Amino acid sequence: MHIALIGTGNVGRALAKAWAAAGHDVALGSRHPEAKKDLAEELGVPVIGIGEAAARAEVVVNVTPGAESIAALRTAGAESLAGKLLIDIAVGFTEEPHGMALSHPTVSLAEEIQSTFPEAQVVKTLSTMDSVVMTSPDSLAGPSTVFLSGDNPTAKSRTALLLTDLGWPPSSHLDLGPLETARGQEHFAHLFMGIAVSQGTYGFNVRVVPPKAE
Amino acid sequence: MHIALIGTGNVGRALAKAWAAAGHDVALGSRHPEAKKDLAEELGVPVIGIGEAAARAEVVVNVTPGAESIAALRTAGAESLAGKLLIDIAVGFTEEPHGMALSHPTVSLAEEIQSTFPEAQVVKTLSTMDSVVMTSPDSLAGPSTVFLSGDNPTAKSRTALLLTDLGWPPSSHLDLGPLETARGQEHFAHLFMGIAVSQGTYGFNVRVVPPKAE
Repeated sequence: MHIALIGTGNVGRALAKAWAAAGHDVALGSRHPEAKKDLAEELGVPVIGIGEAAARAEVVVNVTPGAESIAALRTAGAESLAGKLLIDIAVGFTEEPHGMALSHPTVSLAEEIQSTFPEAQVVKTLSTMDSVVMTSPDSLAGPSTVFLSGDNPTAKSRTALLLTDLGWPPSSHLDLGPLETARGQEHFAHLFMGIAVSQGTYGFNVRVVPPKAE
Repeated sequence: MHIALIGTGNVGRALAKAWAAAGHDVALGSRHPEAKKDLAEELGVPVIGIGEAAARAEVVVNVTPGAESIAALRTAGAESLAGKLLIDIAVGFTEEPHGMALSHPTVSLAEEIQSTFPEAQVVKTLSTMDSVVMTSPDSLAGPSTVFLSGDNPTAKSRTALLLTDLGWPPSSHLDLGPLETARGQEHFAHLFMGIAVSQGTYGFNVRVVPPKAE
């Protein structure tokens, strides 16, 4: 598949390498592609303008900082997103007097992206873990869970295939249901940070442990 | 230990039975104890007034609905909570136009309880799971995690012993650090509800899966 990753941070880089290694045609979209020549060489994938990357792609993946995602996707343009799978991985933070807060604390960022680009097929996933775990689920001491939220079943099925390409077996996928369940994935960021700080590592994930089979 | 559970809902009932079975001296505190005679008989533990229950106890456990917790604990009275371990299990919800929201979305309920009763030793725990799982961790298909947040190390150690009495081995306890990390436990409610609705059961928990040992 032709995949455009919008954003060139740790998550974009890790996913670009992993999906390219799985045989996909990957490009990174950047506001300043001309300043990212070294990155393109290092990763072996082109770094091009956000609009160009989105226009060419079959699948667009939002890996920008969450507080900037809507603006970055507006740069891509609604026409370039219409009818396409738009995978949203971002979680946005703001620094408040009482500590870290989500930039989209009520209606989720994923839902705001969907309402801003109603013709895109938004699926939220991978937002509950660090970039290393996203692309190396086997780095953990046992199987763990990756969540999916989205209103379009076909878009979720296509996302599931791309997760499998990253090393997430279907048994690790948990479909939470409609896109509004992205709120749960995003609000998990508070617990994620507590676990990360107390354990001194981002290299963990959670597993949903079901009831014993009867 | 003399334990007062403030609240007589599912969580209070389940914990009262389990801690009484483990040999603790348990009472349930209710606003209307005279109307709960059948409950007292059913559980085999006294149901008394909130103030009386708190005054007698060494450990007070808040299992009221989160949106009503501060008011219920005011009924107990600051003097009855001073110097005592106060275990907070509650998460509060409000119905907003956009869906479910936390009643304490910024500074956590646990922190608000602590600042309202500064002489209590507040520990947040057990708030990320259903009452059945709280008292039957073995009902799940494998080991899972129970989180602790609190500013007082002795209070957390005493809480850990009470968790062990419920069937949570020390290896399942994850100390997140100071009480402000209760925000993570409370915000997990959004993901909890998404998992519960999509899986059709409250009988699950999460396990933190660490990195592979090196």
